[in-house]
Amino acid sequence: MRRLKTLAVVGVGLIGGSFALALKRAGAASNVIGVDRDPHTLERAIALGVVDTAADSPADAAREADLVLVAVPVRQIGGVLREVGPALRPDGVVTDAGSTKADVVRAARESMRERFARYVPGHPIAGRESSGVDAAIADLFRGARVVLTPSAETAPDAVDLVRGCWEAAGGRIATTLPETHDHVFAAVSHLPHMLAFALVSEIAARENSHELFGFAAGGFRDFTRIAGSSPEMWRDIALQNKEALLAELDRYTARVAVFRELIARGDGPALERLMREARGARANWIAGTRRSPSSE
Amino acid sequence: MRRLKTLAVVGVGLIGGSFALALKRAGAASNVIGVDRDPHTLERAIALGVVDTAADSPADAAREADLVLVAVPVRQIGGVLREVGPALRPDGVVTDAGSTKADVVRAARESMRERFARYVPGHPIAGRESSGVDAAIADLFRGARVVLTPSAETAPDAVDLVRGCWEAAGGRIATTLPETHDHVFAAVSHLPHMLAFALVSEIAARENSHELFGFAAGGFRDFTRIAGSSPEMWRDIALQNKEALLAELDRYTARVAVFRELIARGDGPALERLMREARGARANWIAGTRRSPSSE
Repeated sequence: MRRLKTLAVVGVGLIGGSFALALKRAGAASNVIGVDRDPHTLERAIALGVVDTAADSPADAAREADLVLVAVPVRQIGGVLREVGPALRPDGVVTDAGSTKADVVRAARESMRERFARYVPGHPIAGRESSGVDAAIADLFRGARVVLTPSAETAPDAVDLVRGCWEAAGGRIATTLPETHDHVFAAVSHLPHMLAFALVSEIAARENSHELFGFAAGGFRDFTRIAGSSPEMWRDIALQNKEALLAELDRYTARVAVFRELIARGDGPALERLMREARGARANWIAGTRRSPSSE
Repeated sequence: MRRLKTLAVVGVGLIGGSFALALKRAGAASNVIGVDRDPHTLERAIALGVVDTAADSPADAAREADLVLVAVPVRQIGGVLREVGPALRPDGVVTDAGSTKADVVRAARESMRERFARYVPGHPIAGRESSGVDAAIADLFRGARVVLTPSAETAPDAVDLVRGCWEAAGGRIATTLPETHDHVFAAVSHLPHMLAFALVSEIAARENSHELFGFAAGGFRDFTRIAGSSPEMWRDIALQNKEALLAELDRYTARVAVFRELIARGDGPALERLMREARGARANWIAGTRRSPSSE
């Protein structure tokens, strides 16, 4: 891949910060410019060596950059791209790290207009229990899937650049349609996040929540780990992928109702069969991820 | 505590096996007799050094033992106690590791009759992704809560013995009423297990399940870790703690419906507020577990 003289990161949080650290460590970027709405975050990012300098606006950063990564909550991506588009150098490329894609691509097409070909929609499948620039680590994307959803109009050299950068960060690239992406992630990511937030929310609202948490153990901790994620980010994801997520919530609620019914009528064999199938499917999946090169 | 000359473990799986290993390592038990319905398991347990000898029946083992741990699925505990009761030595003690307590105590009272005072109901809050004797480890209970639910009739020396053994295994004892135990664990353990089984069950039943699992990542893995637990064990728990679990399923479903409604009408502020409260409650809980001596 082409080595980046200057990488710009708009939104220097866990994802943006980790991308900067990973590319620096891989020797794939010489200089990183950070942009963030929070000046304190930028100070931290410079102090931590995550970025080298700060720019005042996405446009200022884009004028200097070979590649701009937009790593802000999904509902803000369109607005950032509107500023980045006109400032982007002729061979400059912009990509994003949003967890939804159809809506972001739609916003990009509208806001970037004739520069849309320089935009490569992306989604790295990685996260940690904590968020923010202090949680950024160079290893975050090692073995992680990174989904790109380019359109027919997207410039091939732009896709190659973005692909090369993610691979330098340790990612494994998959390419799909934005709509397919959104349906898949509604099921395996957005839904479980809502379910985890809902469980903690329900327990926390009880009068005896202190007692309940007092006996919660490792199973509860793992089940609810994703409820430690950024509320702002997940609010946006839920609203931006609303139709697919509502469909998943309904399917899931129906499945829970099946479990409820089997428990209510004491149907041990049918309950055990469902659990056994689920355990088997999960074990196959885990075995598969261990056979693949690596997985986060 | 009194050192055990002979410990008997009925059901040499993850919990029974780990208890045996922990007490041996602590020097709290000299000799361990194993009983299991599966002869292959007993062979493995002897080969792995988890137990020293095998007995043919719970009664045979109980005749030799200072302490009998019954670590079988909860619906089988009553039957085992029926056999153990008459064989128990006058100063012998029997305890269990069942994840439900009110039903087990009821069954114990009925099946042990005049020996009921020698029975100490227990529940170690520990587990692993895998089950069976091969998964047994001496460290399983280090820092884990162990809940005891003795009755007014339970002999104090029996409670002391069981408490001492769990402490020797690294556990932190809590004492409560069987009914309180069951309500608490319906919320923080039994419910999440059902929810995790239901999610994997729902995904696995899809035509495109291969694609869906292909993009599932760390969040999904942690959320569904408890769906790797023993189906037989969890079938029993669900049925034995039915009333409390059904109530929890209904509360949870209602909370999910609130999230659904907020998403459907695009109420970002309310959605974010619920998520923020949940994240804060979870963060407080995690911080609390780190302050306590240790936690599994």
